[in-house]
Amino acid sequence: MSGEAAYADWIAVDWGTSHLRVWAMTSDGEMRAEATSDKGMGCLTPGEFEPALLELVEPWLGAGTIEVTACGMVGSRQGWAEAPYVAVPCKPLELRAVPAKTQDRRLRLRLIPGVKQDKPADVMRGEETQIAGFLSTVPGFDGVLCLPGTHTKWAEISAGEVVSFRTFMTGELYATLSKESVLRHSVGEGWSDDAFSGAVAEALAKPEMLAARLFSIRAEGLLRGPDPDAANARLSGLLIGAELAAAKPYWLGREIVVIGADRIAKAYAEALDHQGLTAKSADGARMTRAGLTALHQRHSEPAA
Amino acid sequence: MSGEAAYADWIAVDWGTSHLRVWAMTSDGEMRAEATSDKGMGCLTPGEFEPALLELVEPWLGAGTIEVTACGMVGSRQGWAEAPYVAVPCKPLELRAVPAKTQDRRLRLRLIPGVKQDKPADVMRGEETQIAGFLSTVPGFDGVLCLPGTHTKWAEISAGEVVSFRTFMTGELYATLSKESVLRHSVGEGWSDDAFSGAVAEALAKPEMLAARLFSIRAEGLLRGPDPDAANARLSGLLIGAELAAAKPYWLGREIVVIGADRIAKAYAEALDHQGLTAKSADGARMTRAGLTALHQRHSEPAA
Repeated sequence: MSGEAAYADWIAVDWGTSHLRVWAMTSDGEMRAEATSDKGMGCLTPGEFEPALLELVEPWLGAGTIEVTACGMVGSRQGWAEAPYVAVPCKPLELRAVPAKTQDRRLRLRLIPGVKQDKPADVMRGEETQIAGFLSTVPGFDGVLCLPGTHTKWAEISAGEVVSFRTFMTGELYATLSKESVLRHSVGEGWSDDAFSGAVAEALAKPEMLAARLFSIRAEGLLRGPDPDAANARLSGLLIGAELAAAKPYWLGREIVVIGADRIAKAYAEALDHQGLTAKSADGARMTRAGLTALHQRHSEPAA
Repeated sequence: MSGEAAYADWIAVDWGTSHLRVWAMTSDGEMRAEATSDKGMGCLTPGEFEPALLELVEPWLGAGTIEVTACGMVGSRQGWAEAPYVAVPCKPLELRAVPAKTQDRRLRLRLIPGVKQDKPADVMRGEETQIAGFLSTVPGFDGVLCLPGTHTKWAEISAGEVVSFRTFMTGELYATLSKESVLRHSVGEGWSDDAFSGAVAEALAKPEMLAARLFSIRAEGLLRGPDPDAANARLSGLLIGAELAAAKPYWLGREIVVIGADRIAKAYAEALDHQGLTAKSADGARMTRAGLTALHQRHSEPAA
């Protein structure tokens, strides 16, 4: 990163509830630099978005105007400005980013809209951009994308469209149960492959037993002595297994790609593997950048 | 409550993680006075139990020794002293309370042990006393007791024994999800009978869909406008419905008594009612006192 003028041709932004990630991009979609901060949407008031962005991208700006394309919760009603949801079925690569006002004239900001589904009621913000990125890489994809996270999404993709999707609160259940519930006394930071795969299998066999099996993690710790690594893997396995049971109509007999490369994405791939399914994987941050690039370039083209 | 000497013949104590309740009892099991504090086990170090108890019962003491019989987490490893678990199958009315040391010579303390189950691993502390109380009132009971709470218990009772039991973290899931998760933006304090019964039915039909339906509470609020009362009832209904689906082997075709009379116990009774099952109900605090009385009297009898 340097202070020279117009270091970037345009700026790509991934702005979620708890994080802000920016990339200095070249016009041909290469990443020149990146920066992050913890100034997610969740901790900002409306007037604080622009300063939070400038704090990171100021060194990349020149005298002229630079295009900034952003995805994520920054486009929600509580964000910088609202980019209203687009309803499924829709083509992520044809989403129109919405212009938003800035105080600083050097910035020309556009916000990528989220995607909504009426029945069952569901929403995404940010994942649509990862899906666009994936489809820009694998244009003819027909199958299912799994996007693990705080609110894991399963999306059915056909002919370049998101046909339907479903969100599972699995990641948030894991975080609140391991930190706020009685299970915090039992669950550590470590891992056990056996405990994880056993729990996935149990949960898939009888997914309705979730609330009872969760308590058994605590009871086992009390009666058989603590095993924080196994308890952690078991909690994760019970939750992911229950999700896989519910998402079965999505993944059964389909080609599956898990978008993400962190521990949680690997856990999903491993859980699917136990079901005899080989899921491919794609890097989450790369898909976000690819999606931002595709949707940025769409706006740079002459309007139809 | 008065300051006269030996106001109580003995003292009954219900000491949980977050509360302390004491009753001044007569030798024939009548309650003369009661007092409560928020000094639950969760906020006390070992040396703080006796002062917390004396703070409430001091006015009831005379010059002589008084028997104090206590149930709940006070008998856990982190409690005043440990009263080790008794394994199922066991007769709650034959549990032997364990003597514990006190600094104050006026107190003769006994702690009622909890009950454990090896497979599946499970524990209870406090509920065994409520079950003892219920069995002292309905000695020939053969059926299922449901004890709603932070950790709801289902116990199969036959011939005066707890044959088996299972704990569900439903109450704690409700508390952490409504306060700590993204659902806190959607869930209010009010209630909707229709939303509750609809959610119970949905959960019973497809209990594995829990994590997806939880997120739909948030998505519905975003897409259709907020309805905090309905969202609250729906959250409760989804969790209780999923529990009923899992507890089906317990309640199907059995006589059911729900111990408790608060809103959550009424919700369980209502949810069972939607399944065509008429659950009887018994007051929770009264069952605790009846159990403490029965187990206190057992110790007052000459040893066999």
